Amino acid sequence: MVKITFPDNQVREYQEGITGIDIAKSLSNSLAKEVVAVTVNGEIWDSTRVINTDASIKLHKFDDKEGKHAFWHSSAHLMAEALELLYPGIRFGIGPAIENGFYYDVDPGDGVVITEGDLPKIEQKMKELVAQKSQYLREDISKAEVLDYFKKKGEVYKVELISELEDGTITLYKQGNFTDLCRGPHLPDTGHIKAIKLLSIAGAYWRGDEKRKQLTRIYGITFPKQAMLDEYLELLEQAKARDHRKIGKELELFMFSAKVGQGLPLWLPKGTALRERLQDFLKKVQKRYGYDLVMTPHIGHKDLYVTSGHYEKYGKDSFQPIKTPQEGEEFMLKPMNCPHHCEMYKGKPRSYKDLPVRFAEFGTVYRYEQSGELHGLTRVRGFTQDDAHIFCRPDQLKDEFKKVIDIILYIFKTLDFPDFTTQVSLRDKVNREKYIGTDENWEKAERAIIEAADEKGLKTIVEYGEAAFYGPKLDFMVKDAIGRSWQLGTIQVDYNLPERFELEYTGSDDLKHRPVMIHRAPFGSMERFVAVLIEHTAGKFPLWLTPDQAIILPISEKYHEYAEKVLKFLNNYDIRTLIDTRAEKIGKKIRDAELKRIPYLVIVGEKEAGDGTISVRKQGVGDQGTMKAEEFIQIVNKEVQDQTAELQ
Amino acid sequence: MVKITFPDNQVREYQEGITGIDIAKSLSNSLAKEVVAVTVNGEIWDSTRVINTDASIKLHKFDDKEGKHAFWHSSAHLMAEALELLYPGIRFGIGPAIENGFYYDVDPGDGVVITEGDLPKIEQKMKELVAQKSQYLREDISKAEVLDYFKKKGEVYKVELISELEDGTITLYKQGNFTDLCRGPHLPDTGHIKAIKLLSIAGAYWRGDEKRKQLTRIYGITFPKQAMLDEYLELLEQAKARDHRKIGKELELFMFSAKVGQGLPLWLPKGTALRERLQDFLKKVQKRYGYDLVMTPHIGHKDLYVTSGHYEKYGKDSFQPIKTPQEGEEFMLKPMNCPHHCEMYKGKPRSYKDLPVRFAEFGTVYRYEQSGELHGLTRVRGFTQDDAHIFCRPDQLKDEFKKVIDIILYIFKTLDFPDFTTQVSLRDKVNREKYIGTDENWEKAERAIIEAADEKGLKTIVEYGEAAFYGPKLDFMVKDAIGRSWQLGTIQVDYNLPERFELEYTGSDDLKHRPVMIHRAPFGSMERFVAVLIEHTAGKFPLWLTPDQAIILPISEKYHEYAEKVLKFLNNYDIRTLIDTRAEKIGKKIRDAELKRIPYLVIVGEKEAGDGTISVRKQGVGDQGTMKAEEFIQIVNKEVQDQTAELQ
Repeated sequence: MVKITFPDNQVREYQEGITGIDIAKSLSNSLAKEVVAVTVNGEIWDSTRVINTDASIKLHKFDDKEGKHAFWHSSAHLMAEALELLYPGIRFGIGPAIENGFYYDVDPGDGVVITEGDLPKIEQKMKELVAQKSQYLREDISKAEVLDYFKKKGEVYKVELISELEDGTITLYKQGNFTDLCRGPHLPDTGHIKAIKLLSIAGAYWRGDEKRKQLTRIYGITFPKQAMLDEYLELLEQAKARDHRKIGKELELFMFSAKVGQGLPLWLPKGTALRERLQDFLKKVQKRYGYDLVMTPHIGHKDLYVTSGHYEKYGKDSFQPIKTPQEGEEFMLKPMNCPHHCEMYKGKPRSYKDLPVRFAEFGTVYRYEQSGELHGLTRVRGFTQDDAHIFCRPDQLKDEFKKVIDIILYIFKTLDFPDFTTQVSLRDKVNREKYIGTDENWEKAERAIIEAADEKGLKTIVEYGEAAFYGPKLDFMVKDAIGRSWQLGTIQVDYNLPERFELEYTGSDDLKHRPVMIHRAPFGSMERFVAVLIEHTAGKFPLWLTPDQAIILPISEKYHEYAEKVLKFLNNYDIRTLIDTRAEKIGKKIRDAELKRIPYLVIVGEKEAGDGTISVRKQGVGDQGTMKAEEFIQIVNKEVQDQTAELQ
Repeated sequence: MVKITFPDNQVREYQEGITGIDIAKSLSNSLAKEVVAVTVNGEIWDSTRVINTDASIKLHKFDDKEGKHAFWHSSAHLMAEALELLYPGIRFGIGPAIENGFYYDVDPGDGVVITEGDLPKIEQKMKELVAQKSQYLREDISKAEVLDYFKKKGEVYKVELISELEDGTITLYKQGNFTDLCRGPHLPDTGHIKAIKLLSIAGAYWRGDEKRKQLTRIYGITFPKQAMLDEYLELLEQAKARDHRKIGKELELFMFSAKVGQGLPLWLPKGTALRERLQDFLKKVQKRYGYDLVMTPHIGHKDLYVTSGHYEKYGKDSFQPIKTPQEGEEFMLKPMNCPHHCEMYKGKPRSYKDLPVRFAEFGTVYRYEQSGELHGLTRVRGFTQDDAHIFCRPDQLKDEFKKVIDIILYIFKTLDFPDFTTQVSLRDKVNREKYIGTDENWEKAERAIIEAADEKGLKTIVEYGEAAFYGPKLDFMVKDAIGRSWQLGTIQVDYNLPERFELEYTGSDDLKHRPVMIHRAPFGSMERFVAVLIEHTAGKFPLWLTPDQAIILPISEKYHEYAEKVLKFLNNYDIRTLIDTRAEKIGKKIRDAELKRIPYLVIVGEKEAGDGTISVRKQGVGDQGTMKAEEFIQIVNKEVQDQTAELQ
């Protein structure tokens, strides 16, 4: 018999040779149908692999990250099988699961081209193979045998990969007539894959090296139910319409320039004004919570990063150091603001009465990302963190943590993200060598976070082993209007930097003590947050935040003079107002204003000019009637006040 | 006879062999006594040097930059003569005139040390030599002879310098028993030097190379009148008390850290708040003048600077390029914001109706300065320009120029710099090859600047040949409270970048045209401006700007509770208020608050706590009486409103 420990610490005994699926069946048949993988003693396994020792296990369904991975990885193998049937002689590169779906890089052979028009045919073949319910079979064989197999098959890419592996046993997976080099895990059989959609085709250099052959990358996604696929495709459509790159361009919020450099956003006037409003909002909140705004340079001397420990981690994949005329002198583009803030903390002696010290900075940092990884404002090479570092006494940690949670919750509320989840990342339960700081401090900090989250009513997922080596943390993930999750704010405890920078305060005992540091960024970065906000609101920002609050649409040129008068009046009252004096019909003007997502349309014609009034339409709501401009100003101000009520 | 042309274009005839002094005498004897040098056909000469050809001349008195230079350079020679008499065997390095006075680097010989205690003795000897009224005599001799002379004298440093000169004739100057290698010009005789003060001694490596011998650098200053020296020394004392580095530290406005790097300021909370208020002030003014705030990254791809032309000027004395994992890819720390703004202008098609486009940015730029050149916030390696670039049609240039002048004048007025001068820098009258752009455009631009300055009532000095190669400019120099001049705002016309970036707009003629660009920065940089403001106000900032507006001083601990109540009340009304709850006597608390330059002291004791009132003292003014906190808030708000009246 083997003892199987479940995630809730229950223990049950089973026969040796039992599998994940068997265990699931012992709990319920419906569960067994859904299980696609199993974690055994921290390793992810096929649900059909036999367990011969005592083990702690976790069963994975498609809902899990691990379940999706196995599902989509198996789907990549399935697609490969279909491709081999349709394109004999095709050779395979790599075919991983990705965040949403999977891809396979393939070389169809000289003169053979696979285009998007071929995707339905490949999907069809995959469906036929699904009907065969072929099992995914795992096999451990020697490197020599594997090499021999792939060489005979002419799989030059696989042969190259295998040659670089260590000698010993290598794992293959086989389903139907297709065999692949793979670590697994996989589904029990292809029958699980009920819904298939191949999405797109792109070119991809073999091993990301532009000097090597360009392979054909085929992207796809699969689901255990057709309804799930339908829902996903619908989401994809919605996401396309909300793409922040598209809307950012339409609303002239930001741009990129090849000459300035990829991944380096240029904030256009309307985007800058929006960002300033967001920053002002945060500044107000932070001031209320006792933060001090500071400003530090965007570079730092090598010594700073030697002390912080970042220097040795600055690899070849980073922005390289900036040399100067002085021999041996080096500066780095700052990848984070904390080392600068530590030096600021050290700038004068601190007493226990001075703590907590809270330095906030809208600090622009630079991190090199591969050009293929760059994406609009969400993956950039330069971004501005809404950063702050709190230096506090250990006994203040929980209270400070709670205050940071308050700020984040307040921000989510004001910016209308009602749906969010939180994750507490703690040390590994067993393997604890890599963590710095005393056990006592870690326990204190972990307890502080858990209690703080609890007292603030957060429903947290606790993940062991996910803490950074220098401290535990709390992450916030928000759901946007179409249900997608975005990682935003983080609160991170840090024992490492205070140690490395030898930060101190004088305690009430007149002795020197080490403060604890908290890193926190509610938005994460201004760039990322604005991207999320655009995709969440589809560019229809709340009135207080939106670049243009109103646009005046004169019915014809006759009313331009009156329209200009209204414009001046509204702008004088700080209502951000545009005017459309083009020689277009009013219907066209209204449609264009909707495209610009301007909340209020102010229409003026004969009646209005005669009465000294304006006609107001609200986007997505409709006609608001005719009124005096003063009344409209009150309506706008009231709406703005309601949206930012707690800040007034 | 030779024709002598004066700066006012008057021409007079003189005998050949006339000197500057003779010409001065022909105008007035009192002038002749004051003339210390003369510019002859653009070259600065001794006033005693004979003129044998037609020439345009300008006579220099001590007031002139050129006059001071000759005066102080002659004083350096005088000090050298005194040193040689006091320290036989002393060897000389270089001894130039500097911005204020002069220095000489000397090697007193093995075992001989010159200290500050020796300065009076050297001064005394200089005065004796002045009494001799020795003439400064100029001599042109061959390099071989000069080398021979200095070799014999054991002047190893001079020998090294001479060896590096081109073969041919070399100029020596001799006064009394001292001969020096020198290009001149010099005073007629030592008798002009009526007032002498040697200021300090420092170590200086020979040729700035720390691997070579450290020489002794002796600093001094001299004047034609004792009263001028007394005034200068008084100014020096005042300047010391106003030093922004000292006050910046006392008021905790900014700091430097060796680890972050020299010349890279860290803005502390109070300094950041002050800077934010200044920026907000500028943002408001600029918004009123139709500027759009933008934000751009602090680095740019090499291509950007190849286009702008900066790349080829990026020498070994700059921050070096930032390499990346991608071969051949290079980024530069941005030394200015204009190339980024040009790319932004290019971001969409522009019509003549869209112009002017005005992009403003508080853009932090980085320029490498030698560590010896760094000085507080006035000479730094990273600074934030209050920058803007205006893209306009040629016909809009003058009007735009006038608007920029308005902004600068408004800023000077609000920040209390009533005393300023302006300089228009135009092309050289003759030598015009180096300037880019058509003659027509240059004339238009030069006329626009002169007329704009004129119409705005500015008294400008016009300097020919001081324009940048890409356009004329207007500079503003302010005088601070103790009469020192600081270069602040600049307005610069630019035809070059629009050309290099191929910027365009569609004219009313439907053809493509090139816009003109104006660079402007009223403050110059936030760092420099804050430094000037500190030295101008001695840290006593205007109430609207000052970090802390009031401090509450409870008479004793009994009134702490009441004091805290007042504090909360004032802070609620956005009066920036501190509290001093230390167990100190009230007299000490008042003195410390004065040191912190806090404008209002709010004293609370038995009477105030009983009556629910506060007693108010104003710094530099005195007792303001006892009043309700509400009344005090009104006083503060009124004062702030008056200071920023036109902005409300």
